[in-house]
Amino acid sequence: MKAKVFITLKPGLLDAQGKTIKGALDALGFRGVRDVRIGKYIEIDLTGGRASRQAVERMCRKLLANPVIEQYRIELVRS
Amino acid sequence: MKAKVFITLKPGLLDAQGKTIKGALDALGFRGVRDVRIGKYIEIDLTGGRASRQAVERMCRKLLANPVIEQYRIELVRS
Repeated sequence: MKAKVFITLKPGLLDAQGKTIKGALDALGFRGVRDVRIGKYIEIDLTGGRASRQAVERMCRKLLANPVIEQYRIELVRS
Repeated sequence: MKAKVFITLKPGLLDAQGKTIKGALDALGFRGVRDVRIGKYIEIDLTGGRASRQAVERMCRKLLANPVIEQYRIELVRS
């Protein structure tokens, strides 16, 4: 079982890294980029076949994400 | 149109950040974590309705990813 975790800044918070990348894309001549937001993508390889979304949610709250400023989304896939 | 880009280290390369997080999850008492790999998740908000996967691929090759050590996957979604 594999858990894919997507961690992004909450909407409305300034994403300085994303703004920088947007500026770089503009400077490189890419047209039509309105906004860029950067997040983390974490793949967790879990032993056992049981889907344990609760465990992965606990990992997010305790370690992987900062719940004050970040939100997360979890996808469980059979590997 | 929104492009979601997932950038991960190529398989086989040591993911030091992932190893550290795996160690921290073990230390926190989470059982059954075999491996953790960390990547980047980038959301690009594009103007215009045309799907331009080629443009996003060029962005990946020129700026967003390091093609020597990283691989990327692109998803285009209507926003």
